[in-house]
Amino acid sequence: MSNPPLNITIHLACSLDGIIAKSNNDIAWMETSSSYENGSDLSPEQIAGFLSSIDCYVMGSKTYEHAMALAVSYGWAYGDTPVVVLSSRNLPKINDKVTIVSGELAALTHGLQASQYKNVWVVGGALLAQSFLREKLADQLRLSIIPIVLGDGLALFQQVAELPLQLQELRAGKNGIVDICYKIGK
Amino acid sequence: MSNPPLNITIHLACSLDGIIAKSNNDIAWMETSSSYENGSDLSPEQIAGFLSSIDCYVMGSKTYEHAMALAVSYGWAYGDTPVVVLSSRNLPKINDKVTIVSGELAALTHGLQASQYKNVWVVGGALLAQSFLREKLADQLRLSIIPIVLGDGLALFQQVAELPLQLQELRAGKNGIVDICYKIGK
Repeated sequence: MSNPPLNITIHLACSLDGIIAKSNNDIAWMETSSSYENGSDLSPEQIAGFLSSIDCYVMGSKTYEHAMALAVSYGWAYGDTPVVVLSSRNLPKINDKVTIVSGELAALTHGLQASQYKNVWVVGGALLAQSFLREKLADQLRLSIIPIVLGDGLALFQQVAELPLQLQELRAGKNGIVDICYKIGK
Repeated sequence: MSNPPLNITIHLACSLDGIIAKSNNDIAWMETSSSYENGSDLSPEQIAGFLSSIDCYVMGSKTYEHAMALAVSYGWAYGDTPVVVLSSRNLPKINDKVTIVSGELAALTHGLQASQYKNVWVVGGALLAQSFLREKLADQLRLSIIPIVLGDGLALFQQVAELPLQLQELRAGKNGIVDICYKIGK
Protein backbone atom coordinates (compact mmCIF):
# COMPACT_ATOMS: atom_id res chain seq x y z
CA MET A 1 0.00 0.00 0.00
CA SER A 2 1.27 3.44 -0.88
CA ASN A 3 1.18 6.37 1.50
CA PRO A 4 -1.52 9.05 1.13
CA PRO A 5 -0.37 12.22 -0.67
CA LEU A 6 1.40 14.55 1.73
CA ASN A 7 0.52 18.26 1.63
CA ILE A 8 3.02 20.57 3.33
CA THR A 9 1.80 24.08 4.13
CA ILE A 10 4.05 26.89 5.30
CA HIS A 11 2.07 29.18 7.59
CA LEU A 12 3.57 32.43 8.83
CA ALA A 13 2.50 35.89 9.89
CA CYS A 14 4.43 38.66 8.18
CA SER A 15 4.34 42.35 7.42
CA LEU A 16 3.28 43.62 3.97
CA ASP A 17 6.98 43.72 3.08
CA GLY A 18 7.44 40.04 3.99
CA ILE A 19 9.30 40.55 7.25
CA ILE A 20 8.56 37.87 9.82
CA ALA A 21 10.79 39.08 12.66
CA LYS A 22 12.21 42.45 13.58
CA SER A 23 15.93 42.71 14.22
CA ASN A 24 15.26 43.45 17.91
CA ASN A 25 12.83 40.48 18.17
CA ASP A 26 10.02 42.80 19.24
CA ILE A 27 6.69 41.19 18.33
CA ALA A 28 4.34 44.03 19.37
CA TRP A 29 3.77 44.84 15.68
CA MET A 30 1.80 41.60 15.31
CA GLU A 31 -0.84 42.90 17.71
CA THR A 32 -2.41 45.27 15.24
CA SER A 33 -4.94 47.82 16.46
CA SER A 34 -6.13 48.19 12.89
CA SER A 35 -9.70 47.53 11.77
CA TYR A 36 -11.40 46.70 8.48
CA GLU A 37 -15.15 47.13 8.23
CA ASN A 38 -15.60 44.74 5.30
CA GLY A 39 -13.58 42.01 6.98
CA SER A 40 -15.09 38.68 8.02
CA ASP A 41 -13.82 36.62 10.91
CA LEU A 42 -13.96 32.83 11.06
CA SER A 43 -16.34 31.39 13.63
CA PRO A 44 -14.86 29.31 16.51
CA GLU A 45 -16.39 26.23 14.81
CA GLN A 46 -14.70 27.10 11.50
CA ILE A 47 -11.37 27.56 13.26
CA ALA A 48 -11.76 24.27 15.12
CA GLY A 49 -12.62 22.46 11.88
CA PHE A 50 -9.67 24.03 10.17
CA LEU A 51 -7.22 23.12 12.93
CA SER A 52 -8.52 19.55 13.20
CA SER A 53 -7.50 19.01 9.56
CA ILE A 54 -3.84 19.48 10.48
CA ASP A 55 -2.22 16.21 11.49
CA CYS A 56 1.33 17.40 12.22
CA TYR A 57 3.19 20.65 12.91
CA VAL A 58 6.83 21.16 11.96
CA MET A 59 8.94 23.92 13.48
CA GLY A 60 12.50 25.01 14.13
CA SER A 61 14.09 25.03 17.56
CA LYS A 62 13.57 28.73 18.31
CA THR A 63 9.89 28.59 17.39
CA TYR A 64 9.60 25.54 19.66
CA GLU A 65 11.35 27.28 22.55
CA HIS A 66 9.09 30.29 22.07
CA ALA A 67 6.00 28.03 22.11
CA MET A 68 7.27 26.37 25.32
CA ALA A 69 7.75 29.78 26.95
CA LEU A 70 4.23 30.84 25.95
CA ALA A 71 2.83 27.52 27.25
CA VAL A 72 3.72 28.58 30.82
CA SER A 73 1.08 31.32 30.68
CA TYR A 74 -1.30 30.22 27.94
CA GLY A 75 -0.98 26.45 27.67
CA TRP A 76 0.50 24.44 24.81
CA ALA A 77 -0.79 25.87 21.52
CA TYR A 78 -0.70 22.64 19.49
CA GLY A 79 -3.01 20.46 21.61
CA ASP A 80 -2.72 16.73 20.96
CA THR A 81 -1.41 17.15 17.43
CA PRO A 82 2.04 15.67 16.76
CA VAL A 83 4.81 18.27 16.62
CA VAL A 84 8.14 17.64 14.90
CA VAL A 85 10.96 19.97 15.94
CA LEU A 86 13.86 20.13 13.52
CA SER A 87 16.98 20.63 15.61
CA SER A 88 20.35 19.11 16.27
CA ARG A 89 20.24 20.44 19.83
CA ASN A 90 19.26 18.34 22.84
CA LEU A 91 15.92 20.05 23.56
CA PRO A 92 13.47 19.02 26.30
CA LYS A 93 10.17 17.44 25.19
CA ILE A 94 7.21 19.37 26.60
CA ASN A 95 4.92 16.35 26.04
CA ASP A 96 4.94 12.97 24.32
CA LYS A 97 3.46 14.40 21.12
CA VAL A 98 6.74 16.20 20.46
CA THR A 99 9.53 14.58 18.45
CA ILE A 100 12.94 16.21 18.06
CA VAL A 101 14.65 15.25 14.81
CA SER A 102 17.84 16.33 13.12
CA GLY A 103 19.15 15.87 9.60
CA GLU A 104 18.19 16.76 6.07
CA LEU A 105 14.85 18.28 5.18
CA ALA A 106 14.24 15.77 2.38
CA ALA A 107 14.70 12.91 4.87
CA LEU A 108 12.33 14.62 7.31
CA THR A 109 9.74 14.94 4.55
CA HIS A 110 10.05 11.24 3.71
CA GLY A 111 9.58 10.49 7.40
CA LEU A 112 6.40 12.59 7.49
CA GLN A 113 5.10 10.72 4.46
CA ALA A 114 5.93 7.35 6.03
CA SER A 115 3.94 8.44 9.09
CA GLN A 116 0.85 8.65 6.84
CA TYR A 117 0.43 12.36 7.52
CA LYS A 118 -1.68 14.14 4.93
CA ASN A 119 -1.71 17.74 6.10
CA VAL A 120 1.50 19.05 7.68
CA TRP A 121 1.98 22.68 8.70
CA VAL A 122 5.40 24.31 8.90
CA VAL A 123 4.88 27.15 11.38
CA GLY A 124 8.35 28.75 11.52
CA GLY A 125 10.80 30.16 11.81
CA ALA A 126 11.77 32.00 8.68
CA LEU A 127 14.95 30.03 8.06
CA LEU A 128 13.13 26.70 8.15
CA ALA A 129 10.38 28.07 5.90
CA GLN A 130 13.02 29.37 3.47
CA SER A 131 14.64 25.94 3.38
CA PHE A 132 11.33 24.30 2.52
CA LEU A 133 10.79 26.85 -0.26
CA ARG A 134 14.34 26.54 -1.60
CA GLU A 135 14.23 22.75 -1.68
CA LYS A 136 10.74 22.87 -3.25
CA LEU A 137 9.32 20.68 -0.51
CA ALA A 138 6.33 22.87 0.35
CA ASP A 139 3.00 22.60 -1.47
CA GLN A 140 1.19 25.60 -0.03
CA LEU A 141 2.09 29.01 1.33
CA ARG A 142 -0.36 30.56 3.75
CA LEU A 143 0.45 34.07 4.97
CA SER A 144 -1.30 36.26 7.50
CA ILE A 145 -0.32 39.74 6.35
CA ILE A 146 -0.27 42.22 9.24
CA PRO A 147 -1.15 45.78 8.11
CA ILE A 148 2.28 47.31 8.53
CA VAL A 149 5.47 47.91 6.56
CA LEU A 150 8.46 47.11 8.78
CA GLY A 151 11.26 47.98 6.39
CA ASP A 152 13.86 45.97 8.25
CA GLY A 153 14.21 42.50 9.77
CA LEU A 154 14.22 38.85 8.78
CA ALA A 155 12.60 38.54 5.35
CA LEU A 156 10.69 35.36 4.48
CA PHE A 157 11.71 35.34 0.83
CA GLN A 158 15.39 36.09 1.22
CA GLN A 159 17.52 33.75 -0.86
CA VAL A 160 14.50 32.04 -2.38
CA ALA A 161 14.50 31.45 -6.13
CA GLU A 162 11.58 32.18 -8.47
CA LEU A 163 8.39 30.26 -7.61
CA PRO A 164 5.16 30.39 -9.60
CA LEU A 165 2.08 30.53 -7.36
CA GLN A 166 -1.62 29.82 -7.72
CA LEU A 167 -4.03 31.76 -5.51
CA GLN A 168 -6.28 29.44 -3.53
CA GLU A 169 -7.84 31.51 -0.76
CA LEU A 170 -8.14 35.16 0.19
CA ARG A 171 -9.87 36.66 3.22
CA ALA A 172 -9.49 39.75 5.34
CA GLY A 173 -10.38 39.74 9.04
CA LYS A 174 -12.06 42.59 10.90
CA ASN A 175 -8.62 43.51 12.25
CA GLY A 176 -7.32 44.17 8.73
CA ILE A 177 -5.10 41.08 8.67
CA VAL A 178 -5.18 39.47 5.22
CA ASP A 179 -5.07 35.69 5.06
CA ILE A 180 -3.81 34.58 1.71
CA CYS A 181 -3.09 31.05 0.56
CA TYR A 182 -1.21 30.00 -2.56
CA LYS A 183 -0.45 26.63 -4.10
CA ILE A 184 3.25 26.56 -4.93
CA GLY A 185 4.19 25.52 -8.47
CA LYS A 186 7.03 23.02 -8.82
CA MET B 1 -10.08 79.80 -0.42
CA SER B 2 -8.14 76.75 0.63
CA ASN B 3 -7.29 73.92 -1.74
CA PRO B 4 -9.25 70.65 -1.61
CA PRO B 5 -7.54 67.86 0.33
CA LEU B 6 -5.02 66.06 -1.86
CA ASN B 7 -4.94 62.26 -1.80
CA ILE B 8 -1.78 60.68 -3.22
CA THR B 9 -1.99 56.98 -4.09
CA ILE B 10 0.98 54.84 -5.00
CA HIS B 11 -0.12 52.16 -7.44
CA LEU B 12 2.25 49.40 -8.49
CA ALA B 13 2.20 45.81 -9.60
CA CYS B 14 4.58 43.59 -7.68
CA SER B 15 5.35 39.98 -6.90
CA LEU B 16 4.32 38.45 -3.56
CA ASP B 17 7.82 39.25 -2.31
CA GLY B 18 7.42 42.95 -3.20
CA ILE B 19 9.67 42.97 -6.28
CA ILE B 20 8.54 45.40 -8.94
CA ALA B 21 11.26 44.82 -11.54
CA LYS B 22 13.56 41.92 -12.27
CA SER B 23 17.27 42.62 -12.54
CA ASN B 24 17.18 41.78 -16.27
CA ASN B 25 14.10 44.03 -16.81
CA ASP B 26 12.10 41.09 -18.11
CA ILE B 27 8.40 41.80 -17.55
CA ALA B 28 6.95 38.49 -18.78
CA TRP B 29 6.23 37.51 -15.14
CA MET B 30 3.49 40.16 -15.03
CA GLU B 31 1.51 38.25 -17.65
CA THR B 32 0.34 35.56 -15.29
CA SER B 33 -1.33 32.48 -16.73
CA SER B 34 -2.74 31.76 -13.29
CA SER B 35 -6.44 31.50 -12.52
CA TYR B 36 -8.61 31.83 -9.44
CA GLU B 37 -12.15 30.47 -9.56
CA ASN B 38 -13.44 32.64 -6.69
CA GLY B 39 -12.04 35.83 -8.20
CA SER B 40 -14.21 38.66 -9.42
CA ASP B 41 -13.23 41.03 -12.21
CA LEU B 42 -14.30 44.64 -12.40
CA SER B 43 -16.72 45.48 -15.20
CA PRO B 44 -15.55 47.89 -17.95
CA GLU B 45 -17.94 50.46 -16.42
CA GLN B 46 -16.40 50.00 -12.95
CA ILE B 47 -12.91 50.41 -14.39
CA ALA B 48 -13.95 53.52 -16.33
CA GLY B 49 -15.54 55.02 -13.20
CA PHE B 50 -12.45 54.20 -11.20
CA LEU B 51 -10.07 55.74 -13.73
CA SER B 52 -12.18 58.86 -14.16
CA SER B 53 -11.70 59.60 -10.44
CA ILE B 54 -7.96 60.07 -11.01
CA ASP B 55 -7.12 63.66 -11.90
CA CYS B 56 -3.35 63.40 -12.27
CA TYR B 57 -0.67 60.74 -12.73
CA VAL B 58 2.88 61.17 -11.42
CA MET B 59 5.74 59.04 -12.71
CA GLY B 60 9.52 58.88 -12.98
CA SER B 61 11.39 59.31 -16.25
CA LYS B 62 11.90 55.60 -16.96
CA THR B 63 8.23 54.81 -16.43
CA TYR B 64 7.39 57.70 -18.77
CA GLU B 65 9.81 56.49 -21.45
CA HIS B 66 8.34 52.99 -21.14
CA ALA B 67 4.80 54.42 -21.51
CA MET B 68 5.92 56.37 -24.60
CA ALA B 69 7.41 53.21 -26.13
CA LEU B 70 4.18 51.28 -25.47
CA ALA B 71 2.15 54.15 -26.95
CA VAL B 72 3.61 53.40 -30.40
CA SER B 73 1.74 50.08 -30.48
CA TYR B 74 -1.09 50.49 -28.00
CA GLY B 75 -1.75 54.23 -27.73
CA TRP B 76 -1.13 56.50 -24.77
CA ALA B 77 -2.32 54.77 -21.61
CA TYR B 78 -3.26 57.88 -19.62
CA GLY B 79 -5.82 59.43 -21.97
CA ASP B 80 -6.55 63.11 -21.36
CA THR B 81 -5.53 63.00 -17.72
CA PRO B 82 -2.65 65.32 -16.73
CA VAL B 83 0.66 63.50 -16.30
CA VAL B 84 3.53 64.93 -14.26
CA VAL B 85 6.93 63.38 -14.99
CA LEU B 86 9.54 63.95 -12.31
CA SER B 87 12.87 64.26 -14.09
CA SER B 88 15.81 66.59 -14.42
CA ARG B 89 16.38 65.30 -17.95
CA ASN B 90 15.21 67.11 -21.08
CA LEU B 91 12.49 64.64 -22.09
CA PRO B 92 10.13 65.04 -25.08
CA LYS B 93 6.46 65.73 -24.32
CA ILE B 94 4.23 63.12 -25.96
CA ASN B 95 1.20 65.45 -25.67
CA ASP B 96 0.20 68.71 -23.99
CA LYS B 97 -1.18 66.92 -20.94
CA VAL B 98 2.38 66.00 -19.95
CA THR B 99 4.46 68.27 -17.71
CA ILE B 100 8.11 67.55 -16.97
CA VAL B 101 9.19 68.87 -13.57
CA SER B 102 12.38 68.60 -11.56
CA GLY B 103 13.17 69.35 -7.96
CA GLU B 104 12.14 68.20 -4.51
CA LEU B 105 9.21 65.87 -3.94
CA ALA B 106 7.73 68.12 -1.26
CA ALA B 107 7.68 71.04 -3.72
CA LEU B 108 6.07 68.81 -6.36
CA THR B 109 3.40 67.82 -3.84
CA HIS B 110 2.69 71.47 -3.03
CA GLY B 111 2.38 72.12 -6.75
CA LEU B 112 -0.14 69.28 -7.12
CA GLN B 113 -2.13 70.73 -4.25
CA ALA B 114 -2.03 74.21 -5.76
CA SER B 115 -3.38 72.70 -9.00
CA GLN B 116 -6.52 71.69 -7.05
CA TYR B 117 -5.94 68.00 -7.74
CA LYS B 118 -7.78 65.71 -5.33
CA ASN B 119 -6.78 62.24 -6.47
CA VAL B 120 -3.21 61.79 -7.72
CA TRP B 121 -1.72 58.42 -8.63
CA VAL B 122 2.00 57.72 -8.48
CA VAL B 123 2.46 54.86 -10.96
CA GLY B 124 6.20 54.20 -10.75
CA GLY B 125 8.97 53.46 -10.77
CA ALA B 126 10.03 51.87 -7.54
CA LEU B 127 12.55 54.56 -6.65
CA LEU B 128 9.98 57.33 -6.95
CA ALA B 129 7.43 55.30 -4.96
CA GLN B 130 10.08 54.68 -2.27
CA SER B 131 10.78 58.41 -2.07
CA PHE B 132 7.07 59.15 -1.56
CA LEU B 133 6.92 56.50 1.19
CA ARG B 134 10.13 57.67 2.86
CA GLU B 135 9.07 61.31 2.88
CA LYS B 136 5.59 60.30 4.09
CA LEU B 137 3.94 62.11 1.20
CA ALA B 138 1.70 59.24 0.09
CA ASP B 139 -1.75 58.64 1.58
CA GLN B 140 -2.60 55.31 0.00
CA LEU B 141 -0.75 52.26 -1.22
CA ARG B 142 -2.48 50.16 -3.85
CA LEU B 143 -0.71 46.99 -4.94
CA SER B 144 -1.60 44.46 -7.60
CA ILE B 145 0.10 41.33 -6.31
CA ILE B 146 1.06 38.97 -9.15
CA PRO B 147 0.98 35.30 -8.07
CA ILE B 148 4.72 34.68 -8.14
CA VAL B 149 7.75 34.87 -5.86
CA LEU B 150 10.65 36.42 -7.81
CA GLY B 151 13.33 36.26 -5.13
CA ASP B 152 15.51 38.87 -6.77
CA GLY B 153 15.13 42.33 -8.29
CA LEU B 154 14.13 45.87 -7.36
CA ALA B 155 12.14 45.71 -4.11
CA LEU B 156 9.43 48.29 -3.46
CA PHE B 157 10.05 48.52 0.28
CA GLN B 158 13.83 48.74 0.25
CA GLN B 159 15.08 51.51 2.51
CA VAL B 160 11.59 52.39 3.71
CA ALA B 161 11.09 52.91 7.44
CA GLU B 162 8.23 51.44 9.48
CA LEU B 163 4.75 52.51 8.31
CA PRO B 164 1.48 51.55 9.97
CA LEU B 165 -1.23 50.67 7.46
CA GLN B 166 -4.99 50.43 7.44
CA LEU B 167 -6.62 47.97 5.04
CA GLN B 168 -9.18 49.68 2.81
CA GLU B 169 -9.88 47.31 -0.06
CA LEU B 170 -9.17 43.72 -1.00
CA ARG B 171 -10.16 41.89 -4.15
CA ALA B 172 -8.82 39.00 -6.21
CA GLY B 173 -9.32 38.84 -9.97
CA LYS B 174 -10.04 35.68 -11.95
CA ASN B 175 -6.38 35.67 -12.94
CA GLY B 176 -5.29 35.31 -9.30
CA ILE B 177 -3.95 38.86 -9.07
CA VAL B 178 -4.75 40.35 -5.66
CA ASP B 179 -5.62 44.05 -5.54
CA ILE B 180 -4.99 45.38 -2.09
CA CYS B 181 -5.31 48.96 -0.93
CA TYR B 182 -4.06 50.42 2.35
CA LYS B 183 -4.32 53.84 3.91
CA ILE B 184 -0.85 54.84 5.10
CA GLY B 185 -0.56 56.04 8.69
CA LYS B 186 1.50 59.17 9.27
